[in-house]
Amino acid sequence: MKRKVYFVSDHTGLTVEAIGKALLSQFPDLDYQTVLVPFVDDLKKVEELARKIALETPQPVVFSSLVNGELRAALQHSGVRCFDFFETYTAPLESALGVHSAPRLGKHHGIGDPGSYHNRMHAVHFAVDNDDGTVTRHYGESDLILIGVSRSGKTPTCLYLGLQYGVRAANYPLTDDDFDLADAGEVLPDALRAYRGKLVGLRIEPDQLQRIRAERRPNSRYASLEQCRHETDLADALYRRFDIPVLDVTAMSIEEIAARLVQRLK
Amino acid sequence: MKRKVYFVSDHTGLTVEAIGKALLSQFPDLDYQTVLVPFVDDLKKVEELARKIALETPQPVVFSSLVNGELRAALQHSGVRCFDFFETYTAPLESALGVHSAPRLGKHHGIGDPGSYHNRMHAVHFAVDNDDGTVTRHYGESDLILIGVSRSGKTPTCLYLGLQYGVRAANYPLTDDDFDLADAGEVLPDALRAYRGKLVGLRIEPDQLQRIRAERRPNSRYASLEQCRHETDLADALYRRFDIPVLDVTAMSIEEIAARLVQRLK
Repeated sequence: MKRKVYFVSDHTGLTVEAIGKALLSQFPDLDYQTVLVPFVDDLKKVEELARKIALETPQPVVFSSLVNGELRAALQHSGVRCFDFFETYTAPLESALGVHSAPRLGKHHGIGDPGSYHNRMHAVHFAVDNDDGTVTRHYGESDLILIGVSRSGKTPTCLYLGLQYGVRAANYPLTDDDFDLADAGEVLPDALRAYRGKLVGLRIEPDQLQRIRAERRPNSRYASLEQCRHETDLADALYRRFDIPVLDVTAMSIEEIAARLVQRLK
Repeated sequence: MKRKVYFVSDHTGLTVEAIGKALLSQFPDLDYQTVLVPFVDDLKKVEELARKIALETPQPVVFSSLVNGELRAALQHSGVRCFDFFETYTAPLESALGVHSAPRLGKHHGIGDPGSYHNRMHAVHFAVDNDDGTVTRHYGESDLILIGVSRSGKTPTCLYLGLQYGVRAANYPLTDDDFDLADAGEVLPDALRAYRGKLVGLRIEPDQLQRIRAERRPNSRYASLEQCRHETDLADALYRRFDIPVLDVTAMSIEEIAARLVQRLK
Protein backbone atom coordinates (compact mmCIF):
# COMPACT_ATOMS: atom_id res chain seq x y z
CA MET A 1 0.00 0.00 0.00
CA LYS A 2 1.28 3.42 -0.93
CA ARG A 3 1.44 5.90 1.89
CA LYS A 4 -0.83 8.83 1.37
CA VAL A 5 0.55 12.32 1.82
CA TYR A 6 -1.99 15.10 2.21
CA PHE A 7 -1.46 18.76 1.40
CA VAL A 8 -4.07 20.68 3.35
CA SER A 9 -4.63 24.40 3.00
CA ASP A 10 -7.27 26.96 3.81
CA HIS A 11 -6.41 28.56 0.49
CA THR A 12 -5.07 27.29 -2.86
CA GLY A 13 -2.59 24.84 -1.34
CA LEU A 14 0.11 25.84 -3.84
CA THR A 15 2.72 26.69 -1.21
CA VAL A 16 2.18 23.70 1.02
CA GLU A 17 2.21 21.41 -1.99
CA ALA A 18 5.51 22.94 -3.12
CA ILE A 19 7.22 22.58 0.24
CA GLY A 20 5.79 19.09 0.79
CA LYS A 21 6.97 17.88 -2.60
CA ALA A 22 10.40 19.44 -2.07
CA LEU A 23 10.73 17.55 1.22
CA LEU A 24 9.40 14.29 -0.22
CA SER A 25 11.87 14.49 -3.09
CA GLN A 26 14.52 13.77 -0.46
CA PHE A 27 12.97 10.35 0.19
CA PRO A 28 13.65 8.49 -3.04
CA ASP A 29 12.69 5.11 -1.55
CA LEU A 30 9.29 6.20 -0.34
CA ASP A 31 6.29 4.87 -2.26
CA TYR A 32 3.61 7.51 -1.83
CA GLN A 33 0.59 9.14 -3.35
CA THR A 34 -0.23 12.81 -2.82
CA VAL A 35 -3.67 14.29 -2.22
CA LEU A 36 -4.21 18.05 -2.46
CA VAL A 37 -7.07 19.41 -0.35
CA PRO A 38 -7.44 23.17 -0.88
CA PHE A 39 -9.93 25.61 0.65
CA VAL A 40 -10.29 23.80 3.99
CA ASP A 41 -11.53 26.98 5.59
CA ASP A 42 -13.94 26.05 8.36
CA LEU A 43 -13.99 23.77 11.35
CA LYS A 44 -16.48 21.35 9.81
CA LYS A 45 -14.20 20.74 6.81
CA VAL A 46 -11.17 20.19 9.08
CA GLU A 47 -13.04 17.69 11.25
CA GLU A 48 -14.44 15.76 8.29
CA LEU A 49 -11.01 15.55 6.73
CA ALA A 50 -9.33 14.48 9.98
CA ARG A 51 -11.91 11.71 10.49
CA LYS A 52 -11.32 10.42 6.96
CA ILE A 53 -7.53 10.49 7.33
CA ALA A 54 -7.61 8.75 10.72
CA LEU A 55 -9.19 5.67 9.13
CA GLU A 56 -6.46 5.14 6.54
CA THR A 57 -3.51 2.73 6.76
CA PRO A 58 -0.61 3.13 6.61
CA GLN A 59 -0.99 6.28 8.64
CA PRO A 60 -0.90 9.24 6.25
CA VAL A 61 1.38 12.22 6.67
CA VAL A 62 -0.20 15.65 6.44
CA PHE A 63 1.51 18.85 5.40
CA SER A 64 -0.65 21.81 6.16
CA SER A 65 -0.63 25.58 5.93
CA LEU A 66 -3.60 26.74 7.96
CA VAL A 67 -3.47 30.43 8.74
CA ASN A 68 -6.36 30.26 11.18
CA GLY A 69 -5.00 29.06 14.54
CA GLU A 70 -8.29 27.44 15.53
CA LEU A 71 -8.35 25.26 12.41
CA ARG A 72 -4.69 24.42 12.91
CA ALA A 73 -5.29 23.36 16.49
CA ALA A 74 -8.27 21.22 15.45
CA LEU A 75 -6.17 19.36 12.91
CA GLN A 76 -3.22 18.93 15.26
CA HIS A 77 -5.39 17.63 18.10
CA SER A 78 -7.28 15.17 15.92
CA GLY A 79 -4.41 12.71 16.15
CA VAL A 80 -3.41 13.19 12.53
CA ARG A 81 0.36 13.30 11.95
CA CYS A 82 0.71 16.85 10.78
CA PHE A 83 3.43 19.31 9.81
CA ASP A 84 2.17 22.88 9.58
CA PHE A 85 4.62 25.54 8.51
CA PHE A 86 2.75 28.43 10.09
CA GLU A 87 2.81 26.47 13.35
CA THR A 88 6.53 25.83 12.96
CA TYR A 89 7.77 29.21 11.92
CA THR A 90 5.43 31.92 13.18
CA ALA A 91 6.79 32.15 16.74
CA PRO A 92 10.52 32.08 15.86
CA LEU A 93 9.86 34.56 13.09
CA GLU A 94 8.07 36.94 15.46
CA SER A 95 11.09 36.78 17.70
CA ALA A 96 13.56 37.33 14.85
CA LEU A 97 11.62 40.23 13.40
CA GLY A 98 10.55 41.78 16.67
CA VAL A 99 6.97 42.25 15.43
CA HIS A 100 3.75 40.35 15.98
CA SER A 101 1.98 38.44 13.27
CA ALA A 102 -1.66 39.03 12.34
CA PRO A 103 -3.22 35.98 10.71
CA ARG A 104 -4.50 36.87 7.25
CA LEU A 105 -5.90 34.35 4.84
CA GLY A 106 -4.80 33.80 1.30
CA LYS A 107 -2.52 36.76 0.97
CA HIS A 108 0.32 35.02 -0.74
CA HIS A 109 -1.42 33.53 -3.74
CA GLY A 110 -4.03 36.26 -3.83
CA ILE A 111 -3.60 39.35 -5.94
CA GLY A 112 -1.40 40.85 -3.21
CA ASP A 113 0.36 43.91 -4.56
CA PRO A 114 -1.89 44.91 -7.50
CA GLY A 115 0.94 46.68 -9.34
CA SER A 116 3.17 43.64 -9.42
CA TYR A 117 0.22 41.32 -10.11
CA HIS A 118 -0.92 43.33 -13.12
CA ASN A 119 2.63 43.52 -14.36
CA ARG A 120 2.78 39.72 -14.32
CA MET A 121 -0.56 39.42 -16.14
CA HIS A 122 0.58 41.95 -18.70
CA ALA A 123 3.75 39.92 -19.24
CA VAL A 124 1.68 36.76 -19.78
CA HIS A 125 -0.39 38.48 -22.46
CA PHE A 126 2.82 39.79 -23.96
CA ALA A 127 4.19 36.25 -24.19
CA VAL A 128 1.01 34.96 -25.86
CA ASP A 129 0.84 37.87 -28.28
CA ASN A 130 4.51 37.53 -29.21
CA ASP A 131 4.68 33.78 -29.42
CA ASP A 132 6.18 31.87 -32.31
CA GLY A 133 7.53 34.74 -34.37
CA THR A 134 4.27 35.57 -36.14
CA VAL A 135 4.25 39.10 -34.72
CA THR A 136 7.67 40.69 -34.31
CA ARG A 137 6.88 44.40 -34.16
CA HIS A 138 6.75 44.49 -30.34
CA TYR A 139 10.24 43.05 -29.86
CA GLY A 140 11.42 46.48 -28.76
CA GLU A 141 9.24 46.19 -25.64
CA SER A 142 10.56 42.77 -24.67
CA ASP A 143 13.06 42.04 -21.91
CA LEU A 144 14.25 38.92 -23.69
CA ILE A 145 13.80 37.07 -26.98
CA LEU A 146 14.25 33.32 -26.93
CA ILE A 147 15.23 31.57 -30.13
CA GLY A 148 15.40 27.87 -30.81
CA VAL A 149 14.00 25.01 -32.86
CA SER A 150 10.42 23.81 -32.54
CA ARG A 151 9.74 22.19 -29.13
CA SER A 152 12.93 23.33 -27.48
CA GLY A 153 10.76 24.86 -24.75
CA LYS A 154 10.46 28.47 -25.91
CA THR A 155 6.71 28.93 -25.51
CA PRO A 156 6.20 27.50 -22.00
CA THR A 157 9.36 29.24 -20.79
CA CYS A 158 8.17 32.64 -22.05
CA LEU A 159 4.79 32.15 -20.36
CA TYR A 160 6.39 31.08 -17.13
CA LEU A 161 8.76 34.06 -17.20
CA GLY A 162 5.68 36.28 -17.39
CA LEU A 163 3.62 34.45 -14.80
CA GLN A 164 6.29 34.02 -12.17
CA TYR A 165 8.66 36.91 -12.73
CA GLY A 166 6.76 39.53 -14.73
CA VAL A 167 9.48 39.32 -17.40
CA ARG A 168 8.33 40.14 -20.94
CA ALA A 169 9.66 37.44 -23.18
CA ALA A 170 9.04 36.94 -26.87
CA ASN A 171 10.10 33.90 -28.82
CA TYR A 172 11.17 33.27 -32.35
CA PRO A 173 11.34 29.80 -33.86
CA LEU A 174 14.28 28.93 -36.06
CA THR A 175 12.98 27.57 -39.33
CA ASP A 176 14.59 26.43 -42.56
CA ASP A 177 14.48 29.95 -43.98
CA ASP A 178 16.57 31.27 -41.13
CA PHE A 179 19.00 28.38 -41.40
CA ASP A 180 19.44 28.95 -45.13
CA LEU A 181 20.45 32.53 -44.50
CA ALA A 182 22.75 31.71 -41.66
CA ASP A 183 24.20 28.77 -43.51
CA ALA A 184 25.13 30.98 -46.38
CA GLY A 185 27.11 33.12 -43.94
CA GLU A 186 24.55 35.82 -44.44
CA VAL A 187 22.71 37.60 -41.71
CA LEU A 188 20.47 37.07 -38.76
CA PRO A 189 16.76 36.92 -39.56
CA ASP A 190 15.53 40.47 -40.20
CA ALA A 191 13.24 40.49 -37.19
CA LEU A 192 16.10 39.75 -34.81
CA ARG A 193 18.90 41.88 -36.11
CA ALA A 194 17.97 45.02 -34.20
CA TYR A 195 17.69 43.14 -30.89
CA ARG A 196 20.88 41.11 -30.67
CA GLY A 197 21.39 42.12 -27.05
CA LYS A 198 18.10 40.50 -26.06
CA LEU A 199 18.61 37.14 -27.75
CA VAL A 200 19.21 33.87 -25.95
CA GLY A 201 19.50 30.65 -27.93
CA LEU A 202 18.08 27.48 -26.42
CA ARG A 203 20.10 24.42 -27.27
CA ILE A 204 18.89 20.87 -26.81
CA GLU A 205 20.37 17.44 -27.48
CA PRO A 206 18.81 15.87 -30.57
CA ASP A 207 17.74 12.67 -28.79
CA GLN A 208 15.85 14.64 -26.14
CA LEU A 209 14.22 16.77 -28.84
CA GLN A 210 13.27 13.60 -30.68
CA ARG A 211 11.54 12.21 -27.57
CA ILE A 212 9.56 15.43 -27.07
CA ARG A 213 8.52 15.67 -30.72
CA ALA A 214 7.57 11.99 -30.87
CA GLU A 215 4.94 12.58 -28.20
CA ARG A 216 3.41 15.26 -30.33
CA ARG A 217 3.66 13.60 -33.77
CA PRO A 218 4.78 9.99 -33.47
CA ASN A 219 6.51 8.47 -36.51
CA SER A 220 6.68 11.75 -38.38
CA ARG A 221 9.67 13.13 -40.25
CA TYR A 222 9.42 16.07 -37.80
CA ALA A 223 10.11 13.69 -34.90
CA SER A 224 12.84 11.66 -36.58
CA LEU A 225 16.29 11.67 -35.04
CA GLU A 226 17.85 12.73 -38.38
CA GLN A 227 15.62 15.77 -38.64
CA CYS A 228 16.19 16.70 -34.99
CA ARG A 229 19.94 16.36 -35.41
CA HIS A 230 19.86 18.39 -38.62
CA GLU A 231 17.97 21.25 -36.96
CA THR A 232 19.94 21.31 -33.71
CA ASP A 233 23.23 21.31 -35.65
CA LEU A 234 22.06 24.28 -37.69
CA ALA A 235 20.80 26.10 -34.60
CA ASP A 236 24.11 25.56 -32.80
CA ALA A 237 25.97 26.83 -35.85
CA LEU A 238 23.77 29.93 -35.99
CA TYR A 239 24.36 30.68 -32.30
CA ARG A 240 28.11 30.38 -32.80
CA ARG A 241 28.18 32.40 -35.98
CA PHE A 242 26.32 35.34 -34.47
CA ASP A 243 27.81 34.99 -31.01
CA ILE A 244 24.41 34.52 -29.36
CA PRO A 245 24.47 33.49 -25.68
CA VAL A 246 23.27 29.91 -25.32
CA LEU A 247 21.48 27.98 -22.60
CA ASP A 248 21.55 24.19 -22.78
CA VAL A 249 18.05 23.15 -21.76
CA THR A 250 18.34 19.43 -22.50
CA ALA A 251 17.88 18.31 -18.88
CA MET A 252 16.07 21.38 -17.58
CA SER A 253 12.45 21.95 -16.65
CA ILE A 254 10.92 25.25 -17.73
CA GLU A 255 11.07 26.42 -14.11
CA GLU A 256 14.83 25.84 -14.19
CA ILE A 257 15.26 27.49 -17.60
CA ALA A 258 13.30 30.55 -16.43
CA ALA A 259 15.26 30.84 -13.18
CA ARG A 260 18.57 30.70 -15.09
CA LEU A 261 17.41 33.32 -17.58
CA VAL A 262 16.27 35.68 -14.83
CA GLN A 263 19.61 35.25 -13.11
CA ARG A 264 21.36 36.27 -16.35
CA LEU A 265 19.08 39.28 -16.83
CA LYS A 266 20.16 40.74 -13.50
CA MET B 1 15.47 51.26 6.57
CA LYS B 2 13.55 48.35 5.19
CA ARG B 3 14.53 45.00 6.55
CA LYS B 4 15.95 42.73 3.90
CA VAL B 5 14.62 39.20 3.62
CA TYR B 6 16.71 36.77 1.63
CA PHE B 7 15.47 33.65 -0.12
CA VAL B 8 18.49 31.42 -0.61
CA SER B 9 18.40 28.18 -2.55
CA ASP B 10 20.83 25.79 -4.19
CA HIS B 11 18.28 25.47 -6.99
CA THR B 12 15.58 27.78 -8.47
CA GLY B 13 14.45 29.18 -5.12
CA LEU B 14 10.79 28.94 -6.13
CA THR B 15 9.75 26.89 -3.11
CA VAL B 16 11.64 28.85 -0.50
CA GLU B 17 10.36 32.10 -1.99
CA ALA B 18 6.78 30.78 -1.82
CA ILE B 19 7.01 29.67 1.80
CA GLY B 20 8.88 32.81 2.83
CA LYS B 21 6.31 35.08 1.21
CA ALA B 22 3.44 33.11 2.73
CA LEU B 23 4.98 33.57 6.17
CA LEU B 24 5.76 37.24 5.62
CA SER B 25 2.16 37.89 4.51
CA GLN B 26 1.26 37.27 8.15
CA PHE B 27 3.28 40.34 9.19
CA PRO B 28 1.29 43.21 7.70
CA ASP B 29 3.21 45.85 9.66
CA LEU B 30 6.62 44.75 8.52
CA ASP B 31 8.40 47.00 6.05
CA TYR B 32 10.67 44.70 4.08
CA GLN B 33 12.35 44.07 0.79
CA THR B 34 12.95 40.57 -0.59
CA VAL B 35 16.05 39.35 -2.37
CA LEU B 36 16.00 36.04 -4.23
CA VAL B 37 19.39 34.29 -4.50
CA PRO B 38 19.05 31.06 -6.52
CA PHE B 39 21.71 28.49 -7.47
CA VAL B 40 23.85 28.94 -4.35
CA ASP B 41 25.38 25.55 -4.88
CA ASP B 42 28.91 25.61 -3.56
CA LEU B 43 30.69 26.59 -0.37
CA LYS B 44 32.32 29.63 -1.91
CA LYS B 45 28.93 31.10 -2.90
CA VAL B 46 27.50 30.45 0.57
CA GLU B 47 30.44 32.11 2.28
CA GLU B 48 30.40 35.15 0.02
CA LEU B 49 26.68 35.60 0.56
CA ALA B 50 26.94 35.17 4.33
CA ARG B 51 29.71 37.77 4.50
CA LYS B 52 27.60 40.24 2.53
CA ILE B 53 24.49 39.64 4.65
CA ALA B 54 26.44 39.98 7.91
CA LEU B 55 27.34 43.58 7.05
CA GLU B 56 23.75 44.76 6.57
CA THR B 57 21.55 46.58 9.09
CA PRO B 58 18.92 45.98 10.27
CA GLN B 59 19.93 42.35 10.49
CA PRO B 60 18.37 40.53 7.54
CA VAL B 61 16.31 37.38 7.86
CA VAL B 62 17.20 34.48 5.61
CA PHE B 63 14.86 31.75 4.44
CA SER B 64 16.81 28.96 2.85
CA SER B 65 16.28 25.58 1.26
CA LEU B 66 19.71 24.06 0.95
CA VAL B 67 19.60 20.35 0.24
CA ASN B 68 23.31 19.89 0.80
CA GLY B 69 23.94 19.57 4.55
CA GLU B 70 27.42 21.03 4.32
CA LEU B 71 26.17 24.22 2.66
CA ARG B 72 23.34 24.43 5.17
CA ALA B 73 25.74 24.13 8.09
CA ALA B 74 28.03 26.78 6.60
CA LEU B 75 25.14 29.24 6.35
CA GLN B 76 23.81 28.44 9.82
CA HIS B 77 27.21 28.79 11.46
CA SER B 78 28.02 32.07 9.72
CA GLY B 79 25.93 33.96 12.27
CA VAL B 80 23.21 34.77 9.74
CA ARG B 81 19.65 34.50 11.11
CA CYS B 82 18.40 31.64 9.01
CA PHE B 83 15.31 29.45 8.67
CA ASP B 84 15.92 26.39 6.51
CA PHE B 85 13.00 24.08 5.91
CA PHE B 86 15.10 21.03 5.12
CA GLU B 87 16.86 21.59 8.44
CA THR B 88 13.52 21.93 10.23
CA TYR B 89 11.57 19.08 8.75
CA THR B 90 13.94 16.37 7.57
CA ALA B 91 14.51 14.67 10.94
CA PRO B 92 10.86 14.69 12.11
CA LEU B 93 9.81 13.51 8.69
CA GLU B 94 12.27 10.63 8.75
CA SER B 95 10.78 9.60 12.05
CA ALA B 96 7.17 9.91 10.83
CA LEU B 97 7.84 7.99 7.64
CA GLY B 98 10.22 5.45 9.11
CA VAL B 99 12.64 5.85 6.21
CA HIS B 100 15.90 7.72 5.76
CA SER B 101 16.27 10.69 3.47
CA ALA B 102 18.91 10.88 0.76
CA PRO B 103 19.80 14.45 -0.16
CA ARG B 104 19.09 15.08 -3.84
CA LEU B 105 19.39 18.43 -5.48
CA GLY B 106 16.74 20.17 -7.50
CA LYS B 107 14.29 17.32 -7.77
CA HIS B 108 11.19 19.30 -7.05
CA HIS B 109 11.36 21.96 -9.70
CA GLY B 110 13.28 19.78 -12.07
CA ILE B 111 11.58 17.67 -14.69
CA GLY B 112 10.85 15.04 -12.02
CA ASP B 113 8.36 12.54 -13.38
CA PRO B 114 8.74 12.96 -17.16
CA GLY B 115 5.19 11.75 -17.88
CA SER B 116 3.56 14.33 -15.70
CA TYR B 117 6.00 17.04 -16.83
CA HIS B 118 5.30 16.43 -20.49
CA ASN B 119 1.59 16.36 -19.81
CA ARG B 120 1.88 19.83 -18.26
CA MET B 121 3.91 21.11 -21.22
CA HIS B 122 1.39 19.65 -23.63
CA ALA B 123 -1.40 21.38 -21.72
CA VAL B 124 0.45 24.72 -21.98
CA HIS B 125 0.75 24.36 -25.74
CA PHE B 126 -2.91 23.37 -25.85
CA ALA B 127 -3.84 26.59 -24.02
CA VAL B 128 -1.79 28.74 -26.40
CA ASP B 129 -3.14 26.97 -29.49
CA ASN B 130 -6.73 27.27 -28.29
CA ASP B 131 -6.59 30.78 -26.95
CA ASP B 132 -9.11 33.46 -27.77
CA GLY B 133 -11.61 31.45 -29.81
CA THR B 134 -9.74 31.70 -33.09
CA VAL B 135 -9.37 27.93 -33.33
CA THR B 136 -12.30 25.93 -31.91
CA ARG B 137 -11.92 22.56 -33.57
CA HIS B 138 -9.93 21.05 -30.68
CA TYR B 139 -12.56 21.83 -28.04
CA GLY B 140 -13.40 18.13 -27.89
CA GLU B 141 -9.95 17.44 -26.42
CA SER B 142 -10.25 20.11 -23.72
CA ASP B 143 -10.99 19.48 -20.05
CA LEU B 144 -12.55 22.88 -19.69
CA ILE B 145 -13.59 25.88 -21.79
CA LEU B 146 -13.57 29.29 -20.13
CA ILE B 147 -15.81 32.00 -21.49
CA GLY B 148 -15.93 35.65 -20.55
CA VAL B 149 -15.42 39.19 -21.76
CA SER B 150 -12.04 40.55 -22.83
CA ARG B 151 -9.60 40.84 -19.86
CA SER B 152 -11.67 38.82 -17.44
CA GLY B 153 -8.62 36.60 -16.94
CA LYS B 154 -9.29 33.75 -19.37
CA THR B 155 -5.91 33.56 -21.05
CA PRO B 156 -3.59 33.63 -18.01
CA THR B 157 -5.89 31.22 -16.17
CA CYS B 158 -5.84 28.70 -19.02
CA LEU B 159 -2.05 28.87 -19.18
CA TYR B 160 -1.71 28.46 -15.44
CA LEU B 161 -4.10 25.50 -15.46
CA GLY B 162 -1.78 23.85 -17.95
CA LEU B 163 1.48 24.79 -16.25
CA GLN B 164 0.53 23.90 -12.71
CA TYR B 165 -2.11 21.20 -13.07
CA GLY B 166 -1.74 19.74 -16.57
CA VAL B 167 -5.38 20.66 -17.24
CA ARG B 168 -6.19 21.35 -20.90
CA ALA B 169 -8.17 24.54 -20.98
CA ALA B 170 -9.42 26.47 -24.01
CA ASN B 171 -10.97 29.88 -23.87
CA TYR B 172 -13.58 31.69 -25.87
CA PRO B 173 -14.11 35.45 -25.67
CA LEU B 174 -17.65 36.76 -25.63
CA THR B 175 -17.99 39.39 -28.33
CA ASP B 176 -20.85 41.47 -29.63
CA ASP B 177 -21.84 38.77 -32.12
CA ASP B 178 -22.37 36.27 -29.33
CA PHE B 179 -24.29 38.78 -27.26
CA ASP B 180 -26.59 39.59 -30.16
CA LEU B 181 -27.51 35.94 -30.51
CA ALA B 182 -28.04 35.43 -26.80
CA ASP B 183 -29.90 38.67 -26.47
CA ALA B 184 -32.34 37.57 -29.12
CA GLY B 185 -33.03 34.47 -27.04
CA GLU B 186 -31.37 32.44 -29.72
CA VAL B 187 -28.62 29.96 -29.16
CA LEU B 188 -25.18 29.58 -27.73
CA PRO B 189 -22.35 30.42 -30.14
CA ASP B 190 -21.98 27.54 -32.59
CA ALA B 191 -18.51 26.63 -31.37
CA LEU B 192 -19.72 26.12 -27.80
CA ARG B 193 -23.02 24.35 -28.25
CA ALA B 194 -21.60 20.84 -28.39
CA TYR B 195 -19.52 21.38 -25.22
CA ARG B 196 -21.94 22.84 -22.73
CA GLY B 197 -20.72 20.49 -20.00
CA LYS B 198 -17.21 21.94 -20.25
CA LEU B 199 -18.14 25.60 -20.05
CA VAL B 200 -17.43 27.89 -17.12
CA GLY B 201 -18.33 31.56 -17.31
CA LEU B 202 -16.02 34.07 -15.65
CA ARG B 203 -17.87 37.00 -14.17
CA ILE B 204 -16.22 40.21 -13.06
CA GLU B 205 -17.48 43.46 -11.56
CA PRO B 206 -17.49 46.26 -14.16
CA ASP B 207 -15.36 48.64 -12.07
CA GLN B 208 -12.63 46.03 -11.67
CA LEU B 209 -12.78 45.25 -15.40
CA GLN B 210 -12.53 48.95 -16.10
CA ARG B 211 -9.36 49.23 -13.99
CA ILE B 212 -7.74 46.30 -15.79
CA ARG B 213 -8.66 47.56 -19.26
CA ALA B 214 -7.54 51.11 -18.45
CA GLU B 215 -4.01 49.83 -17.87
CA ARG B 216 -4.03 48.32 -21.31
CA ARG B 217 -5.74 51.11 -23.26
CA PRO B 218 -6.19 54.21 -21.13
CA ASN B 219 -9.04 56.59 -22.08
CA SER B 220 -10.44 54.25 -24.71
CA ARG B 221 -14.10 53.36 -25.22
CA TYR B 222 -12.97 49.75 -24.52
CA ALA B 223 -11.90 50.79 -21.01
CA SER B 224 -14.88 53.02 -20.22
CA LEU B 225 -17.09 52.07 -17.32
CA GLU B 226 -20.18 52.17 -19.56
CA GLN B 227 -18.71 49.71 -22.02
CA CYS B 228 -17.48 47.41 -19.22
CA ARG B 229 -20.90 47.50 -17.58
CA HIS B 230 -22.63 46.84 -20.90
CA GLU B 231 -20.48 43.78 -21.61
CA THR B 232 -20.58 42.29 -18.11
CA ASP B 233 -24.38 42.69 -18.02
CA LEU B 234 -24.69 40.85 -21.30
CA ALA B 235 -22.27 38.13 -20.19
CA ASP B 236 -24.18 37.59 -16.94
CA ALA B 237 -27.43 37.39 -18.90
CA LEU B 238 -25.93 34.83 -21.26
CA TYR B 239 -24.69 32.67 -18.36
CA ARG B 240 -28.15 32.74 -16.80
CA ARG B 241 -30.00 32.06 -20.03
CA PHE B 242 -27.93 29.00 -20.86
CA ASP B 243 -27.48 27.87 -17.29
CA ILE B 244 -23.69 28.04 -17.48
CA PRO B 245 -21.81 27.61 -14.17
CA VAL B 246 -20.22 30.88 -13.15
CA LEU B 247 -17.13 31.82 -11.15
CA ASP B 248 -16.88 35.36 -9.84
CA VAL B 249 -13.25 36.31 -10.36
CA THR B 250 -13.47 39.98 -9.40
CA ALA B 251 -11.19 39.70 -6.37
CA MET B 252 -9.29 36.56 -7.38
CA SER B 253 -5.76 36.06 -8.65
CA ILE B 254 -5.33 33.59 -11.49
CA GLU B 255 -3.79 31.13 -9.01
CA GLU B 256 -7.02 31.29 -7.01
CA ILE B 257 -9.24 31.02 -10.10
CA ALA B 258 -7.30 27.98 -11.30
CA ALA B 259 -7.42 26.27 -7.89
CA ARG B 260 -11.20 26.79 -7.71
CA LEU B 261 -11.70 25.43 -11.22
CA VAL B 262 -9.60 22.35 -10.52
CA GLN B 263 -11.60 21.74 -7.37
CA ARG B 264 -14.81 21.84 -9.42
CA LEU B 265 -13.40 19.48 -12.05
CA LYS B 266 -12.83 16.80 -9.42
